[in-house]
Amino acid sequence: MAYPLLDRTVKFARYDPPAMRSAYLDGGRVVVGDVPDPVPAFGQVLVRVLACGICGSDLHFVKYGRQMAAIGEEAPGQTSPLDFDRPIFMGHEFAGEVLEAGPDTAGPKPGTVVTSVPAMLTLSGPAQLAYSNDFPGGYSDRMLLSAPLLLEVPNGLDSELAALTEPMAVGIHAVNRSRIEPGESAVVLGCGPVGLACIAALRRRGVEVVVASDLSPARRRLAGVMGATDVVNPAEEPVVDAWQRVDGQRTLVVFEAVGVPGMLHAAMRDAPQGSRILVVGVCMERDAIQPFIGISKELNIQFALGYDPVEFAGSLRSIAEGEVDVAALVTGRVGVDGTPAAFEALANPDAHCKILVEPSVPDGDDL
Amino acid sequence: MAYPLLDRTVKFARYDPPAMRSAYLDGGRVVVGDVPDPVPAFGQVLVRVLACGICGSDLHFVKYGRQMAAIGEEAPGQTSPLDFDRPIFMGHEFAGEVLEAGPDTAGPKPGTVVTSVPAMLTLSGPAQLAYSNDFPGGYSDRMLLSAPLLLEVPNGLDSELAALTEPMAVGIHAVNRSRIEPGESAVVLGCGPVGLACIAALRRRGVEVVVASDLSPARRRLAGVMGATDVVNPAEEPVVDAWQRVDGQRTLVVFEAVGVPGMLHAAMRDAPQGSRILVVGVCMERDAIQPFIGISKELNIQFALGYDPVEFAGSLRSIAEGEVDVAALVTGRVGVDGTPAAFEALANPDAHCKILVEPSVPDGDDL
Repeated sequence: MAYPLLDRTVKFARYDPPAMRSAYLDGGRVVVGDVPDPVPAFGQVLVRVLACGICGSDLHFVKYGRQMAAIGEEAPGQTSPLDFDRPIFMGHEFAGEVLEAGPDTAGPKPGTVVTSVPAMLTLSGPAQLAYSNDFPGGYSDRMLLSAPLLLEVPNGLDSELAALTEPMAVGIHAVNRSRIEPGESAVVLGCGPVGLACIAALRRRGVEVVVASDLSPARRRLAGVMGATDVVNPAEEPVVDAWQRVDGQRTLVVFEAVGVPGMLHAAMRDAPQGSRILVVGVCMERDAIQPFIGISKELNIQFALGYDPVEFAGSLRSIAEGEVDVAALVTGRVGVDGTPAAFEALANPDAHCKILVEPSVPDGDDL
Repeated sequence: MAYPLLDRTVKFARYDPPAMRSAYLDGGRVVVGDVPDPVPAFGQVLVRVLACGICGSDLHFVKYGRQMAAIGEEAPGQTSPLDFDRPIFMGHEFAGEVLEAGPDTAGPKPGTVVTSVPAMLTLSGPAQLAYSNDFPGGYSDRMLLSAPLLLEVPNGLDSELAALTEPMAVGIHAVNRSRIEPGESAVVLGCGPVGLACIAALRRRGVEVVVASDLSPARRRLAGVMGATDVVNPAEEPVVDAWQRVDGQRTLVVFEAVGVPGMLHAAMRDAPQGSRILVVGVCMERDAIQPFIGISKELNIQFALGYDPVEFAGSLRSIAEGEVDVAALVTGRVGVDGTPAAFEALANPDAHCKILVEPSVPDGDDL
């Protein structure tokens, strides 16, 4: 199912189809242009995007997308569904307002605020809604969603907070995958959105000792807001030392949420005997470890990615019920045309945590 | 507690203490010499060594011992108890016959055949019995054991088979650590003694599909003896392909029992989504992995080392009850003086699996 972009150089002299603004990846850069207005088919619902968070994965994808696809293809029998010679839509942390349903499609009534796991049901199976040549992502005026996957946002919840359902679900999933119990303790390396989501999920799970570390003062402050019981600057005190100081007794689970080469080795080196390491930071480079350290301490390394639909729904419920206060995570808002500048701004961890693309934001973006 | 070696260059002109033959590591080489006969202290028992297997870890230790100690010291607060400028005893897979107990020490009566986890209880805590400057290991005529740790070898079990208690316990422990269930399936990379012990333990656990791989025809034959349901030459068919051919459905646990750089990456690359990888092969080099592969497939990597006393006792019981036929693993026997040659011979995986040092073996060793 192809969703052809309009050639932005073409003037619509004789024929002017409905178009919308969208930011997408083209030739390795995030650009903004007019694309055809999507039209809902059977099983689909057209929504007006209210807010869509920019994810660290999107920044990764801009830099490493081709490489990620190549690694995926290293496994036997795998081919990437993405064509890097065509524009690629991103934007998978969204909330939107239902405009209309496709033919013969039952969906929430127009005006309903919804979110969804970023997937589309197609006749050839589930497809990714973001990292897609075919479906506009949330950095667009409008997008298509699969009606059976829609979750209604509970009445009154700010769409900005609803858009944080997805990143917070990543933390819930990582914590589930870690098999951590309330009687154990946690260290969280890196307090970007993923690390912060882990902190919130750990506290919600009842883990009493959660020691977080980040080089950025702004992120350390947010770690406290999310419920970290202790927060350190790793340049001043190694985080496992801090954990030894405040606990040092319980079984430790280390959450690696930085995702740069060397972090896994450092986690293995510093973790106590019998620790578990949950890797949720996406390191795109080859990385060196010292297996003998793993052997001699009988470490366990669990990699985690994404979430399942139950975890996603739980994340929305948790936000709507005020169990986790995510408002502080939002540090900026841009319109669709401001998306490229927002990608740039996110390179500075002290300036921003989560920037939302909100098509209704006027010129003069809040960055 | 120091156990000084005699200087082999000294002639005992005026004083000739009782001595015994022992093979030990000296200046990075395995050498044989006369060392003082050990005398049992309180809590200790003197045994005559009947058989002691040469472990791959000992070959590793000869090559990497200093490095292993250095890595251990990288962790905060750790120092190696070993002095590499003094001779180091090895030999931790032993069975022996009780000669005498130390003063005020209750132990099995002389003539009893025993084995033990390779540890000594000392006033400063448990110490390693092998990789020790202080206690002669099993490549000696006689050795000291801690009376409370002794396990009596069930009447009639060949001491050669009892000496295999330790390596087979490594497999039991690895399988326990992997949390594998009978309804899951396993692939075993590498059919040296550790891989073979894993195969035996997997079959004893009730795992119905165990696909093993090794480049050596002799080791592949032994994998079949240990109960592997399929055995492949990885140069001819990748082992995960073989598993796909014979199963491909159940959750897969990959046992990495080779321990050379690149194996972990290959296991991660080839393992299906959601697999677990149990690393029991000891890779002493830095090793590169591609974390994104782990993330995208949500792999779990569990490192395993050693065993606990319950697993050790279970291993002895399992051998004594004939649940696992380990006789085929023994491919050579040498006296103490033949130990250095046996270390050399083990470099060829097609010639040997397990060589036993048996002080009673006469000149003209069976290699």
